[in-house]
Amino acid sequence: MKKEFSLKEIIQTLRKVLPNDKPFIALHEPLFDGNEWTYVKECLDSGWVSSAGEFVERFEKQLIDYTGVKHAVAVVNGTAALHICLQVTGVTIGDEVLIPALTFIATANAVRYCGAIPHFLDSEETSLGLDPYKLEDYLGGISEQRPEGCFNKITGRRIKAVVPMHTFGHPVDMDPLIQLCHKYKLELIEDAAESIGSYYKGQHTGNMGRISISSFNGNKIVTTGGGGAILTNDESLASLARHLTTQAKLPHKWAFKHDMVGYNYRMPNINAALGCAQLEKLPEFIGKKRALALRYQDAFEKVEGVRIFKEASYARSNYWLNILILDEKYAAERDILLELTNGIGIMTRPAWNLMHKLSMYQKCPRMDLSIAESLERRILNIPSSAFL
Amino acid sequence: MKKEFSLKEIIQTLRKVLPNDKPFIALHEPLFDGNEWTYVKECLDSGWVSSAGEFVERFEKQLIDYTGVKHAVAVVNGTAALHICLQVTGVTIGDEVLIPALTFIATANAVRYCGAIPHFLDSEETSLGLDPYKLEDYLGGISEQRPEGCFNKITGRRIKAVVPMHTFGHPVDMDPLIQLCHKYKLELIEDAAESIGSYYKGQHTGNMGRISISSFNGNKIVTTGGGGAILTNDESLASLARHLTTQAKLPHKWAFKHDMVGYNYRMPNINAALGCAQLEKLPEFIGKKRALALRYQDAFEKVEGVRIFKEASYARSNYWLNILILDEKYAAERDILLELTNGIGIMTRPAWNLMHKLSMYQKCPRMDLSIAESLERRILNIPSSAFL
Repeated sequence: MKKEFSLKEIIQTLRKVLPNDKPFIALHEPLFDGNEWTYVKECLDSGWVSSAGEFVERFEKQLIDYTGVKHAVAVVNGTAALHICLQVTGVTIGDEVLIPALTFIATANAVRYCGAIPHFLDSEETSLGLDPYKLEDYLGGISEQRPEGCFNKITGRRIKAVVPMHTFGHPVDMDPLIQLCHKYKLELIEDAAESIGSYYKGQHTGNMGRISISSFNGNKIVTTGGGGAILTNDESLASLARHLTTQAKLPHKWAFKHDMVGYNYRMPNINAALGCAQLEKLPEFIGKKRALALRYQDAFEKVEGVRIFKEASYARSNYWLNILILDEKYAAERDILLELTNGIGIMTRPAWNLMHKLSMYQKCPRMDLSIAESLERRILNIPSSAFL
Repeated sequence: MKKEFSLKEIIQTLRKVLPNDKPFIALHEPLFDGNEWTYVKECLDSGWVSSAGEFVERFEKQLIDYTGVKHAVAVVNGTAALHICLQVTGVTIGDEVLIPALTFIATANAVRYCGAIPHFLDSEETSLGLDPYKLEDYLGGISEQRPEGCFNKITGRRIKAVVPMHTFGHPVDMDPLIQLCHKYKLELIEDAAESIGSYYKGQHTGNMGRISISSFNGNKIVTTGGGGAILTNDESLASLARHLTTQAKLPHKWAFKHDMVGYNYRMPNINAALGCAQLEKLPEFIGKKRALALRYQDAFEKVEGVRIFKEASYARSNYWLNILILDEKYAAERDILLELTNGIGIMTRPAWNLMHKLSMYQKCPRMDLSIAESLERRILNIPSSAFL
């Protein structure tokens, strides 16, 4: 028997999964029930609250242990991390960088910080991330190889890099993308801001590109207040990233000598202290979040016109933010659903406005973006805190 | 009776001022003996550790109350603050920005982040900051006024702004500089990174330019771990700065719409919590630091070949870092003195390498820099923590 589409039913189903003793349920809140206080206090007591402290080193070590990536550089936030990744892989003024249209603004802005131009890619339904097969077809048409790299035949600009973003924690289909990057000589930079604890075929996200980033903003699964990290298996890239993030100051017992235009991007010790405690809890948080995702999936299985996004067959996702996707024919109901849910204290949010629709990026090059446009119309993020 | 120059005497004099029960005395350490832990704990308990939290607003309010500047925007660090100040006052690609050669690298780097070119100025002995009279003579020679502003006749580039930096806390002679900026139509941006608690003719530094910055790095008098602030009396500049530092996101109950290329520069709440407690102690810290400066001045009064830098007649300085200045004829002894003092656990440091001597800034325009070069040879910073 075919059921009817009903906003009321969707809301009732949300209510069934979520606790009913709270007047407001945020989209994502951090949980500080481990060693957070202990470490932050220890940091304050030591007097070392600024960058280059012991907790920064410890935080980097924990990241390395958890992700399996060989080098980590803790920085002020994910945006700063992306900026540095692009710079150390050689992205420069006038280059084009391939990024998904469906992403947070930081991905595009970091490209602009390098004086480069974002070039927008479509997504695929199975990952919400960039579609490597569609990209391959597209590059076959618009690009040509020259001794200096891959060039956009239409704009005449070099296409230097591609930045897959693991949307809401769900890994991009990396294998075909890695092949494509070899074939077209593109740097592969993973924007893993949202995907700590997410795996692609058993590899942690951020471990497959030449370099990658993670984010520890307050809405992430683990937080340092504000924070991010650069991750790479390439020692020379890690070393250059570390240098650039500390104002490119040359080591010396007292002299201030700098040999490049660097940045003040290192993570302060007090933020890293918080992060050390948070990372200890990460496996537990991921377990809880995966359980919540299952509860959502079960609850919505028989609800007409809507589904909860499930990880792809190759993926083990952190389910950072759970995603309710409306069938295309009900897309017009999305804003009403946003109004209704937020009105009753269940925080929901649409996906980001697609990059090419923002005034400062309207003139940037792009492929056909029909899937991303469809997803943008149909996606709602729903409450996903680990303690729900 | 003329005394002889003696490194031994200098070291003995330092020892007389400094506590003799410590194996190591840092150049500047923070002091957390107020409400630091209370506020940081409160912040953790609230769950709001990221930007846009209550402590950020409170910290900004405290800054406004203390400095008398009407608007404050708390950011991740002083470098980020400078970058935004330059951008909101219209500094753009290909402009020149006048900055002292004797400054921390951030002043020059922030200019480069805007795609502009630093143009280096000499210092004066009385303030260690830029010499407004020498600058006036210089601009008279090299610049011309055009409808679009002040232009460098030699390079053909627009000179858009001047950035005085209050060196080690000591205010630049602002009145003649303000006049000069009016005459030459230059934006005046105060780099007050080191001068919280320092006054010029009764006005707090950072309150005289069109916009200014402060820094709360771990080595500053008050710290937020890493942090800075943009200060201005101009509401529209403050509003634009706030917008740019929050990724230029337009306010909306849920939608992600951005209308400019912005930055992830806002200060996290946990850092602001620390800052709120620190600012409460600032008057006490300044009092202690001024007392320490007096003790240094008294102790070194009769020591041959060296003096402790004293605030100019127009200034009331925070004495962030005390400065030992060798007479020019003993400049060659500086490195030996650095070796000896650091060798016995009394941390000392030279001034920064002058900007025009760094490889990436060697080709930038500059005036005669003879005073800055002399100061660079002769300056040592000596331990200056508030608790000494």
